Amino acid sequence: MNKKFTKPEKPQKNQVILYGRHAVLAALSNPKREIYKLLCTKENLDEIHRLSKIAPQVVERKEIDKLFPNDAVHQGFALFCKSLPTYALEDIISMSQDKDKCHVLILDQVSDPQNIGAIIRSAVAFNTLALIIQDKNSPYESGSMAKAAAGMIEHLPIVRVTNLSRAIEQLQKAGFWTIGFDGYAKDSIDKVNRSGKTAIVMGSEGKGMRRLVEENCDMAVRLPMSPLTESLNVAVAASIALYEINKEE
Amino acid sequence: MNKKFTKPEKPQKNQVILYGRHAVLAALSNPKREIYKLLCTKENLDEIHRLSKIAPQVVERKEIDKLFPNDAVHQGFALFCKSLPTYALEDIISMSQDKDKCHVLILDQVSDPQNIGAIIRSAVAFNTLALIIQDKNSPYESGSMAKAAAGMIEHLPIVRVTNLSRAIEQLQKAGFWTIGFDGYAKDSIDKVNRSGKTAIVMGSEGKGMRRLVEENCDMAVRLPMSPLTESLNVAVAASIALYEINKEE
Repeated sequence: MNKKFTKPEKPQKNQVILYGRHAVLAALSNPKREIYKLLCTKENLDEIHRLSKIAPQVVERKEIDKLFPNDAVHQGFALFCKSLPTYALEDIISMSQDKDKCHVLILDQVSDPQNIGAIIRSAVAFNTLALIIQDKNSPYESGSMAKAAAGMIEHLPIVRVTNLSRAIEQLQKAGFWTIGFDGYAKDSIDKVNRSGKTAIVMGSEGKGMRRLVEENCDMAVRLPMSPLTESLNVAVAASIALYEINKEE
Repeated sequence: MNKKFTKPEKPQKNQVILYGRHAVLAALSNPKREIYKLLCTKENLDEIHRLSKIAPQVVERKEIDKLFPNDAVHQGFALFCKSLPTYALEDIISMSQDKDKCHVLILDQVSDPQNIGAIIRSAVAFNTLALIIQDKNSPYESGSMAKAAAGMIEHLPIVRVTNLSRAIEQLQKAGFWTIGFDGYAKDSIDKVNRSGKTAIVMGSEGKGMRRLVEENCDMAVRLPMSPLTESLNVAVAASIALYEINKEE
């Protein structure tokens, strides 16, 4: 037991080590988040005490450095906790039932945890009901994902499905109009009807949506942009789509 | 001379080492870019030969690894070249003179090179005339900035000024309407008149615009978002602003 921190502790299954001020403080404020252990540097004690139900272990900054890759900006916070529970698609559909206008975001093949984190942050900002991702090719909750989400991962239901095309069908049956983003689409996003229930489908930067997924969408749209640019960063593209769909009609 | 690559070569003043497929191929295609040396792995030779005026040195991947920080995704490309020339504000104003509608982006205190790179990528996508930054607190062109810009840094004039408030005044005299972004502003970005010439001013994520800069703007607007979210990632916020201002009236 005295050897702790001589080498990085690996998180257990369903366990995640969060880092960074916003990510850790938001997790401590989330009653649904199961907390195991909290490390912080001395200067962060005050901030922690107001929020934490467990006593933090005060450690030197270099002890926290050892837990993470070189460039992790942990700001003197490390929180060992349980990964957030995921939701079933049925939960999201039932949450949508009393709403006149709402939207979900479906990501096809987006694999970079930091991009997903940035998308989560924007999704909460623009009132997205849930994020739906394919179980097989999507990363699990991680410290870098939560850091990029700046605490917002505590507020967004995430659904992992085995088959995205089937999820799209289920959403369509529940009254969602599904819009796929494709750089080559004829219509621009401006043409989209912002009322009612919408599912936005976005592929990865390199490959875009898979054909089968795109064929299941009700319509395809593109973001209007200069011919000099092949594509936008996927987190930027998703954020613009969510901003646009979240607007008042 | 035989010791090359035993330790990372430091770029000289005004020299930058670009990495990553998009960044390097775009620099090779830019006639204004002065090239010193090009390294690539064997499998990238074909792609390079179509573009490069200088003969590449074929090296092992690990030789390129040594040039960059651990996590740099160089994809087997490293290009030693001169930094791009910056522009004077007067150049930009004269470029704007024959345009009925155009916009520039002013960043106050944004210091992360990757965020600036991502903003450059979006700025080109949304037809931004130039990026204006404060000389003192802004990073210079770098490999990580150019990587995040995915090659688009070759297409965007960048102006470094010593005094942002004075730059805002000069733009105002030249007919630019200056709009500052502030999370606490009364008006939403939807209210903005998209015609004519516009300068968008955006501060850093943590601190926002400095007071003096904000006071010089013609109006302040916010992006409409959920009260759960304090702020957006600055690259996302800037991209949404540019997307919105670039729309047809």
